[in-house]
Amino acid sequence: MKFKAQIDIMPMEELLDPQGKVVTQSLHKLGLGDIDNVRIGKHINLFVDASDESQAHKAVDEACTKLLANLIMESYSFSVEQVS
Amino acid sequence: MKFKAQIDIMPMEELLDPQGKVVTQSLHKLGLGDIDNVRIGKHINLFVDASDESQAHKAVDEACTKLLANLIMESYSFSVEQVS
Repeated sequence: MKFKAQIDIMPMEELLDPQGKVVTQSLHKLGLGDIDNVRIGKHINLFVDASDESQAHKAVDEACTKLLANLIMESYSFSVEQVS
Repeated sequence: MKFKAQIDIMPMEELLDPQGKVVTQSLHKLGLGDIDNVRIGKHINLFVDASDESQAHKAVDEACTKLLANLIMESYSFSVEQVS
């Protein structure tokens, strides 16, 4: 069975996000002063072949911890849905 | 009222995603051969002050088109939820 995973990887809440800060300022300069506290992370889509949803979940979790997320500075969350 | 927006910005389906391709290969080398078609985009969280959800929606849409997304190469989607 094929599953699609949607992963969000964000800088941890406790940490500054300099890129987000600069984007917040840029939005203010563009006239969007009501927007605040922009934080920028990664969104990753991938497909995984697995025998069931729990196996797919396990593979995605392994991908996050082994490669995709830097667990010192980032936290991740994901959802998995069957596509075929 | 304060709203939280969660924005996903992804490379368009028709375009190659070289970064995603390299990550796919790296995952295979790490033993995760069941994962395929990795595509990498941005996930952005922000807060917006607005009088109602429709105004918040409008501000976020403007932020996406004016700054956050490169509409030639990327597509975006977002959700808005009231937080206070």
